[in-house]
Amino acid sequence: MQTLAKSKSQPSFLDAITGPSEVKKLKPAQLVELAREIRQEIIFNLNKTGGHLASNLGVVEITLALHHVFETPKDCILWDVGHQAYIHKMLTGRRNQFATLRQYQGLSGFISPTESEHDAFVAGHSSTSVSLAVGMAIAKDHLKEDRKIIALIGDGGLTGGMALEALNHLGHIQKNVLIILNDNDMSISENVGGYSQYMKRIKETYFYKDIKKKIDWIEDKLDMVPLDPKLMNLITSVKQVAKDKLENPGIVFEKLGINYSGPIDGHDVEAVIDALNKVKDLEAPHILHLITRKGKGFTPAEEDSIKYHGVKAHSLEPTLKEKIEAKDPDSNTNKGLTYSHVFTDALLDCAELEPNMVAITPATAEGSGLVKFGKAYPERFFDVAICEQHAVTMAAGMAKMGLKPVVSIYSTFLQRAMDQVIHDVAIMNLPVIFGIDRGGLVEDGETHQGQFDLAFLRSIPNFTVLAPKDATELRQMVYSALRNLSGPVAIRFPREKAEDNYLTDGVACDFKEFDYKTWEIIKSGKSNKVILACGAMLAPALEAARELESKIEGGVSVVNARSIKPLDIKMLESFVSEHGQDLHLITVEEGTSSGGFGSAVLEWASELNNSNQRPRVSVMGLPDRFIQHGDRNLLLQEVGLTAKSIIEKISPA
Amino acid sequence: MQTLAKSKSQPSFLDAITGPSEVKKLKPAQLVELAREIRQEIIFNLNKTGGHLASNLGVVEITLALHHVFETPKDCILWDVGHQAYIHKMLTGRRNQFATLRQYQGLSGFISPTESEHDAFVAGHSSTSVSLAVGMAIAKDHLKEDRKIIALIGDGGLTGGMALEALNHLGHIQKNVLIILNDNDMSISENVGGYSQYMKRIKETYFYKDIKKKIDWIEDKLDMVPLDPKLMNLITSVKQVAKDKLENPGIVFEKLGINYSGPIDGHDVEAVIDALNKVKDLEAPHILHLITRKGKGFTPAEEDSIKYHGVKAHSLEPTLKEKIEAKDPDSNTNKGLTYSHVFTDALLDCAELEPNMVAITPATAEGSGLVKFGKAYPERFFDVAICEQHAVTMAAGMAKMGLKPVVSIYSTFLQRAMDQVIHDVAIMNLPVIFGIDRGGLVEDGETHQGQFDLAFLRSIPNFTVLAPKDATELRQMVYSALRNLSGPVAIRFPREKAEDNYLTDGVACDFKEFDYKTWEIIKSGKSNKVILACGAMLAPALEAARELESKIEGGVSVVNARSIKPLDIKMLESFVSEHGQDLHLITVEEGTSSGGFGSAVLEWASELNNSNQRPRVSVMGLPDRFIQHGDRNLLLQEVGLTAKSIIEKISPA
Repeated sequence: MQTLAKSKSQPSFLDAITGPSEVKKLKPAQLVELAREIRQEIIFNLNKTGGHLASNLGVVEITLALHHVFETPKDCILWDVGHQAYIHKMLTGRRNQFATLRQYQGLSGFISPTESEHDAFVAGHSSTSVSLAVGMAIAKDHLKEDRKIIALIGDGGLTGGMALEALNHLGHIQKNVLIILNDNDMSISENVGGYSQYMKRIKETYFYKDIKKKIDWIEDKLDMVPLDPKLMNLITSVKQVAKDKLENPGIVFEKLGINYSGPIDGHDVEAVIDALNKVKDLEAPHILHLITRKGKGFTPAEEDSIKYHGVKAHSLEPTLKEKIEAKDPDSNTNKGLTYSHVFTDALLDCAELEPNMVAITPATAEGSGLVKFGKAYPERFFDVAICEQHAVTMAAGMAKMGLKPVVSIYSTFLQRAMDQVIHDVAIMNLPVIFGIDRGGLVEDGETHQGQFDLAFLRSIPNFTVLAPKDATELRQMVYSALRNLSGPVAIRFPREKAEDNYLTDGVACDFKEFDYKTWEIIKSGKSNKVILACGAMLAPALEAARELESKIEGGVSVVNARSIKPLDIKMLESFVSEHGQDLHLITVEEGTSSGGFGSAVLEWASELNNSNQRPRVSVMGLPDRFIQHGDRNLLLQEVGLTAKSIIEKISPA
Repeated sequence: MQTLAKSKSQPSFLDAITGPSEVKKLKPAQLVELAREIRQEIIFNLNKTGGHLASNLGVVEITLALHHVFETPKDCILWDVGHQAYIHKMLTGRRNQFATLRQYQGLSGFISPTESEHDAFVAGHSSTSVSLAVGMAIAKDHLKEDRKIIALIGDGGLTGGMALEALNHLGHIQKNVLIILNDNDMSISENVGGYSQYMKRIKETYFYKDIKKKIDWIEDKLDMVPLDPKLMNLITSVKQVAKDKLENPGIVFEKLGINYSGPIDGHDVEAVIDALNKVKDLEAPHILHLITRKGKGFTPAEEDSIKYHGVKAHSLEPTLKEKIEAKDPDSNTNKGLTYSHVFTDALLDCAELEPNMVAITPATAEGSGLVKFGKAYPERFFDVAICEQHAVTMAAGMAKMGLKPVVSIYSTFLQRAMDQVIHDVAIMNLPVIFGIDRGGLVEDGETHQGQFDLAFLRSIPNFTVLAPKDATELRQMVYSALRNLSGPVAIRFPREKAEDNYLTDGVACDFKEFDYKTWEIIKSGKSNKVILACGAMLAPALEAARELESKIEGGVSVVNARSIKPLDIKMLESFVSEHGQDLHLITVEEGTSSGGFGSAVLEWASELNNSNQRPRVSVMGLPDRFIQHGDRNLLLQEVGLTAKSIIEKISPA
């Protein structure tokens, strides 16, 4: 079963599956065999392409059971997060596209209605499925359609506030929604708080202890009285009913008005089918609680599902164990350091100097590299689960009391906490530092692109928004922001390797406080052309400038515009003094050009009083559309954020 | 007690309160008298100034008890939403400023740390207090400070996802936080779903029915057996313990790891003090459940706390009952219609034509006028409680299934759902209509200003962003957007009276579909000056143009730039053809000028190939700072969005 070699000689149930209706025809024993084949194929494929391994291995039987009992696309399955839908994709006509998984113009790594009518809705972020299901259930009732709406959500997804909002509302309106709780006791990171926690801790709660004490007390009393066995049975029955109910993991859901059944072994395909058949015709909302194991069927992934959450291509060869490469950016086998790694290392080194610095992550400790910080400073590390809103406002509370909180968050997930950023951090101008990871384009695709952070954050009063040019600058920005307590600072960096130019023989350079609100001229040209490049765009800007050396007399200037907000007005004015209205500024940012850094420069220029000083500004950034998945460099080519595009902008052929 | 006349002859406990420490000295009977005096003063003051009446009358005793037991500012009281802190303000040195309540440069209607060190944190939006409390509790432990952190949150606030995220996390990390649950079974609108709902419906749940059935069954059995009375007592005791626990309203909290006590009458000041004293030294997180009545002590407000949620000045004179004016925009006594009213009327009229149109509100049915829609179409109206995230994603699910959902939401609260707008609505380009109320400046102040919606929404691909010039245009936009199912449309309007120019003898004009993506020349001038005004800014723009008639030869053109996104490129190009680079466009919007409509025009201009065509663009919008409370017109003056400012911009003196 652990072999990665695909044996074509065996009779294959998978080969016979041309669509989900074929799954219905199979008997339980055949489904078990099909599950085995699917696991083998998933491991085989992911070893080639990379992808979300553990979560998909965890839902093989659930997916088979869902397609055995329900009928997509008439029935709608809403895959929360949507990265666990590989098996669903295989069963709905996309098996032969798996070689292109997560690749540019290939099969998406997430659920995607543009790929198939069997994908009821897009997903990528967590905790949306219950809200979608409520909306769809209302719609089908209104339209008098006969469909079943099913939300499949993990215990991690249930920690997200919007899932809890939706559960509450569902309990109130009693719409026909079936929620499959895929409880693997593990979100992306280890789970924190919430319903999952509650399930695990049920026997430790004050509540349980309290009732148990009272039941014990009554039992003692009963021991003192001579009892008719018939009566004893009845009393035992009363106790048992109460005890069962109190230990029932579904009590919270039932209290909120949602019926509950389970827990059931989510890898017993027959049991899952039976359970689904029992609840499928219910009119009231229902939660079916399944227990699964991430990585089921691939031993290394079962043992370390965090490491195998996402795997890289060619990392699973069992004969080459040392080649196994995990997503963890700390992994020694990774060549070069990621910005995430550099950020975490900076925090670790600052932690010694700043005893009141604490770090917060909303369930992205591994992806952001912050696990290392958590190990070193467990008392100063807070993984709050998939709770971006809570993470930001909690940080605001901390800052108000004198701590120096650093929130590590992906650009795309920061969107979940925009109100908290405005209402709880910015209004009071609190010194919260945001380490914004995955700023710009990422391989995961449209749901995960970090395209709005610069435009949104620069609109918010009191904010400083930074993008470092390299590893050393990121490190010094973290340090300087921690030293400077004048308000919120966002430091934004890409999902990319950083030059480890801050290390000398593995030893980090000394911290040096600097004024990050100033820009830096990296290359000084004599012509009227000045490229203002943010963060990772500095490299293609420099490359463009070098190539333009021969074409443009005097050469092009290149500025490290590390502060998106505020702008370095002094430097801008010095260019204006030098070139007057001949000045041509070219802004380059890996963020939307609708309202981003380039617009900030345009706004500044529009305010210049003397019309003879108003420079020309050309804005280069992400286009006004969502951007697909694939290798970041291919995506940068697609959107025209390369040296070549910069050259064309400055000196059209 | 119902008299509004303030009798100064009576001995006044209130007069003796110079600070919160004075409250500590009073005995229970004296606190009862003080509560009476406070109610009288609150009613007296609010009759003069307007403000949040019912919620403040509901927390008189709680506030007294809190200051009796705790010691601010050492202990931190976090007032969720913060509009119920008037009594707290009175007791902490701000009593003599109440004549200026909610007025420009006067006392804020919300909690405000800039006013007093006794205000631990800013608030205005709901559901933030538990997250803040968790952050502060972590901070005080880290800093080894001896403080108590208290979050006072309503049952409505607990429906918000971020409060649920915070509760989960608190249960997990077991920090010393006291949550006072002020349960008045009423958020701004009537409560929906959630913990509140659960408390009310506890006896109706499946869970309870189930256990009750079993207990009844056992009782039947017991009736058939002759029993020793001693044994019967024991059995009764077992049943009682189980039943008590099952009926315990705190079971959900306790399951999440947070201890619970209550419910207690929140208007019995002595009982509340006792309850606080019992829990104040606990180390573990605790919820104290208090039952209160909004409007307590003012009969009309007790009877209709929604109507008296906010009251206008001079509306409470009991001798002039017919003068009582509520916040409800439908009220007949309001002179002129609000945009909210016009929007709701348009929805009502469209509902007949569009059977698949549904309306959604996150607990702002009264403020937005949508109550009327809910009454007319209860099956097509969804008040989801304070759950902006769920509201938006639920709408996305509905739209995917073929409904035409309209989300009515305040600009400031839309910030809570930016990720859902992007991830669930925009990526799939779903036809969800957003009726964005309170766009622009509002009297409530910095937490409530609608200043970011235009900048944020126009950055999001697939969005159409509109601002109508008047009532008729709003009405036709709603209709046209419902007819046109090509993607998400945001229609944004101010908290302001609209001209009822769509009514003839009370009868609304016919619906007429129009291309809202085009602009409209309202006033055609011959000079190079063209004002592009959005929404409510059209009026001052026209006024400015009229006054400039004599100053600027040929006169200034004024355009109704009703589509913020997309821009009307055709019209812009026609101005360019006419005036070339002499063209001077002046954009005016009631939104941030960092990335807003003006920046969109700048971006367009920067793309013009021919440098001889690039017009000058001057941007007028909200400044890059938070804006205080007060009358909208005063605020518009402060920020320079008036005819006078436009004149100065175009033709500096």
